[in-house]
Amino acid sequence: MLAIYFDKKLELKDLPKPKIKKGESLIKIHIAGICNTDIEITKGYMNFRGIVGHEFTGVVEKGTFTGRRVVGEINLGCGYCDFCKKDLSRHCTNRSVLGIYKKNGAFADYITLPHKNLHPIPDNLSNEEAVFTEPTAAGMEIFEQVKIFPSDRTAVVGDGKLGQIIAQIVKLTGCYIKVYGKNEKKMELLEKLNINTDIFNNVIKHKYDFVIECSGSPKGFETALKLVKPRGVIILKSTFVNSLKIETSKLVVDEITILGSRCGRFQPALRLLENRLIKVDYLISKIFSADQFKKAFNYAKRKDSLKVLLKFD
Amino acid sequence: MLAIYFDKKLELKDLPKPKIKKGESLIKIHIAGICNTDIEITKGYMNFRGIVGHEFTGVVEKGTFTGRRVVGEINLGCGYCDFCKKDLSRHCTNRSVLGIYKKNGAFADYITLPHKNLHPIPDNLSNEEAVFTEPTAAGMEIFEQVKIFPSDRTAVVGDGKLGQIIAQIVKLTGCYIKVYGKNEKKMELLEKLNINTDIFNNVIKHKYDFVIECSGSPKGFETALKLVKPRGVIILKSTFVNSLKIETSKLVVDEITILGSRCGRFQPALRLLENRLIKVDYLISKIFSADQFKKAFNYAKRKDSLKVLLKFD
Repeated sequence: MLAIYFDKKLELKDLPKPKIKKGESLIKIHIAGICNTDIEITKGYMNFRGIVGHEFTGVVEKGTFTGRRVVGEINLGCGYCDFCKKDLSRHCTNRSVLGIYKKNGAFADYITLPHKNLHPIPDNLSNEEAVFTEPTAAGMEIFEQVKIFPSDRTAVVGDGKLGQIIAQIVKLTGCYIKVYGKNEKKMELLEKLNINTDIFNNVIKHKYDFVIECSGSPKGFETALKLVKPRGVIILKSTFVNSLKIETSKLVVDEITILGSRCGRFQPALRLLENRLIKVDYLISKIFSADQFKKAFNYAKRKDSLKVLLKFD
Repeated sequence: MLAIYFDKKLELKDLPKPKIKKGESLIKIHIAGICNTDIEITKGYMNFRGIVGHEFTGVVEKGTFTGRRVVGEINLGCGYCDFCKKDLSRHCTNRSVLGIYKKNGAFADYITLPHKNLHPIPDNLSNEEAVFTEPTAAGMEIFEQVKIFPSDRTAVVGDGKLGQIIAQIVKLTGCYIKVYGKNEKKMELLEKLNINTDIFNNVIKHKYDFVIECSGSPKGFETALKLVKPRGVIILKSTFVNSLKIETSKLVVDEITILGSRCGRFQPALRLLENRLIKVDYLISKIFSADQFKKAFNYAKRKDSLKVLLKFD
């Protein structure tokens, strides 16, 4: 099978079809999305070596839901530890993560995943829409961690694809929301969804109860620190290689909370998508065939691009 | 009046007795405590210039509670903003802070404070005990911010005076608690209070739901990061000049919360002290007269000392 493999560099390889273990399904990949995390992996994030990719839609060839279109949760826990028992396998210390850690990913003709990780795609969702289940779930994870009240003020820092999805989810709370961005065209897309935007530099200090950092840049974090009110919460949604320098006295004196936030559950994300409560199709910048992966990655890195998809047929 | 004044260096000065404004009381200081924040101020923290000191007990000479022994909250808000309206003057953006920011402090024969900042000292508390109201309130602030469940595991990093007070407060929840320290004698004091201790280097990774950083050192923060479970909370209780370098991917992937925590309300702290639910007198290392302030500061900086008090008679 074809697979996009990372080992110091990205390469298209012809690899054997993976074999399913007990409790696993074999999935024929249809379409897969390039996430910023994939780009970070090519810069050394997680020291990952193997097939990249974790956002996908496919059809089950063998296992549970055979013949049906599915999406799949990306964390594979041990099934026995305290975290797994609480359905938090994404924090299992013995976990592997699809295309990120100790588990070959979705930029390939076939993958295997435990049955329990799979969710059938609702009939009214196209594959191109359903591929956004993973980033939508990551956005909704925020609401498993904090309570944003309708009377709160929330800022999203970053007008990229994750920022756009998260802004739409936050909007559902009825709270005031503004996205701070850099790219005029991306901000126009948000304005069309009736989401306020402003440019990065027009920051009004200490105005937000919640600031969701989706830019993945140290500059974005600095901006978040300016935007947040005393006693407010900064939510970090982006994984990136760099470390941040944080002035601790600011955190202590203003009693700021910094909250890391990662993967979420798929079921609620599918409900929002199925009920058309958030829009994702407009986020697709371009679809490439798998053999054009180099072009696709370069396109995904462009400042004006949003989601780039890879097709495996 | 005598006052310990900081302007590039600490000096004993003879200054005029402060005049009370509308709504303020004049307080004759009896005893005052040296806090780590005072030591940080002498290193440049907050760029403060003026009379240092914010932990005190005194007797009201003029104003409300005349003739009574009092302690006083250290934040002076504008009284009109959203924070002040919610009784959160400690976050008022126009505030001053006793001996820390735009307001002369308590290392002096006299101070002024708004009536509303004052709390009479319960009869069964000595002045030497009541001077711990401010750090006790700072410890209890944690419980205004997070809920520590009886089934949680909490670590305190730092065996100093603040760590000792906070460990005792946390113990009241019934949760498992351990203090990670460096100084054998200080850890013995905790063991006498039936609080588990271990040395800094004996860290067991990912074992705690809550880690309370009271050491004020980058090494302490590193230790906290090791101790905390995925999805756990690190609470920063110490203000210090340095900034921290934080690996953001660790925060995001493990969904760690970092929470700054500062001053708290005095009334609940006085209740714990009055009801003898925490012990503080054993934390007094030495009492100096005000004119021996240099010796006192040097003593406070010693690794084996805990609370150092200054007497103004």
